[in-house]
Amino acid sequence: VDKPIGVFDSGIGGLTVVKEIVKALPNESLVFIGDTARVPYGTRGKAVITQFALELATTLLERDVKYLVAACNTISSTCLAEVRAVSPVPVLGVVDPAVQTALKQTRSGRIGMIGTRATVASGFYEQQIRELEPSVSVMSVACPLFVPLAEEGLSAAQATRLIAADYLAPFADSEIDVLVLGCTHYPILRDVIQQAIGESVVLVDSARPTAETLAAELEEAGLGSEGPAAYELLVTDAPERVHQVASDFFGRELPGALRQTSLGRLPGPGPRD
Amino acid sequence: VDKPIGVFDSGIGGLTVVKEIVKALPNESLVFIGDTARVPYGTRGKAVITQFALELATTLLERDVKYLVAACNTISSTCLAEVRAVSPVPVLGVVDPAVQTALKQTRSGRIGMIGTRATVASGFYEQQIRELEPSVSVMSVACPLFVPLAEEGLSAAQATRLIAADYLAPFADSEIDVLVLGCTHYPILRDVIQQAIGESVVLVDSARPTAETLAAELEEAGLGSEGPAAYELLVTDAPERVHQVASDFFGRELPGALRQTSLGRLPGPGPRD
Repeated sequence: VDKPIGVFDSGIGGLTVVKEIVKALPNESLVFIGDTARVPYGTRGKAVITQFALELATTLLERDVKYLVAACNTISSTCLAEVRAVSPVPVLGVVDPAVQTALKQTRSGRIGMIGTRATVASGFYEQQIRELEPSVSVMSVACPLFVPLAEEGLSAAQATRLIAADYLAPFADSEIDVLVLGCTHYPILRDVIQQAIGESVVLVDSARPTAETLAAELEEAGLGSEGPAAYELLVTDAPERVHQVASDFFGRELPGALRQTSLGRLPGPGPRD
Repeated sequence: VDKPIGVFDSGIGGLTVVKEIVKALPNESLVFIGDTARVPYGTRGKAVITQFALELATTLLERDVKYLVAACNTISSTCLAEVRAVSPVPVLGVVDPAVQTALKQTRSGRIGMIGTRATVASGFYEQQIRELEPSVSVMSVACPLFVPLAEEGLSAAQATRLIAADYLAPFADSEIDVLVLGCTHYPILRDVIQQAIGESVVLVDSARPTAETLAAELEEAGLGSEGPAAYELLVTDAPERVHQVASDFFGRELPGALRQTSLGRLPGPGPRD
């Protein structure tokens, strides 16, 4: 099926997911849209997040994608049901794949999760884990400054270490053995987080699990493509800084350049690079 | 003239300006709109900031305001000319009043300015100062983490001190004697900033100068009101957190509660509280 996969995100953190999808599914074409004009979503209320997410999803559906991936924990936790309700194609979020991986890894039956304020407030991780393994307990902590710290390139700064120690202190006596990085930005701060939480805790992020789940679901649904793959990476605002952050985060591993577009004023379909 | 003054802001930092306007002009009615659904603006490109600012200004103009105040340094630096071009009523920004105050205060003829990335990139402070006092030099530094640190209540944290010391280090040999706090959030971090820059440097923020300039301009234009004053404080997104930050910042000094609204779906005119 020669239609592209559509990936949407509140910003460009979801490009970590795009990278893993490109690795896992090299024949699949892909359209990514990151809402850099309105990022972050994780500090906003559910109604606004839902409205923004539906606008992104609709934009991708108008481009005739065969599958939607919400490459953002805030969207996946807050309004995946609302996106599914309007989508004629399947919708995959990043929470389920991360939860599956975390459940495979835990021995103690106690899992930690860190994310944006909206992700933690949604209770969605707890809900998904309770459905699959009622005996496993989850403890969630919001780390709202991790996104700006990662985007400002302070992943090794002493200030970031202090803030991480403060955020993760509640886990000290929790006996968690797995910590889910419930935001696509957090892998940038992996070293600082690992140091603060202790070496014995396994960090789980959602990028690779999501790509692997997508690969399995595409195959099962007979929706795989033979290639050749074409990529389109769109953002709703592209000041110099966005290019710089994307390049800091991903180097040359991304399959194309970020191109600016507007919601509702997207460039029409044409040759993709 | 019994029309309200319209005040717009990227978020709720501009409420510092509202507070000073209410003090300086107790008989004036006021409508404030803060774009909490899309804050921050300071990390975005000029085209997007301009579009958002025009939407806010238009929303206020539809409510028949007699004066517009851009209570946001990013908007005032980036697109005040564009707002003026569409506005039938006068438009006041926060930069000119702050610049006038800074020029009165400096003895060394060297002024520092800190602000968001967009404010610094605009070069607007430099341009305004050059027009008024070509002999005065300006040095500007972007402090992008100050807004999230202030909003997260970390105004006295060691991490904030480290980040402030880092941001303000370039001023060490600059011989500035005045530092303009070129963002409405920064007064929340006044103590940390004063400590990092040294006690001999005078900090200037734009809230009171803007209110005083507005009072003078209203009187000159014969646009003053006899009262009684009515207040309306609108935000485009109002999760619990926004109320909490507003209350942390301003306590009970604000003349009303924040009410959620949508751009384009504003409640019609009616009795204001």
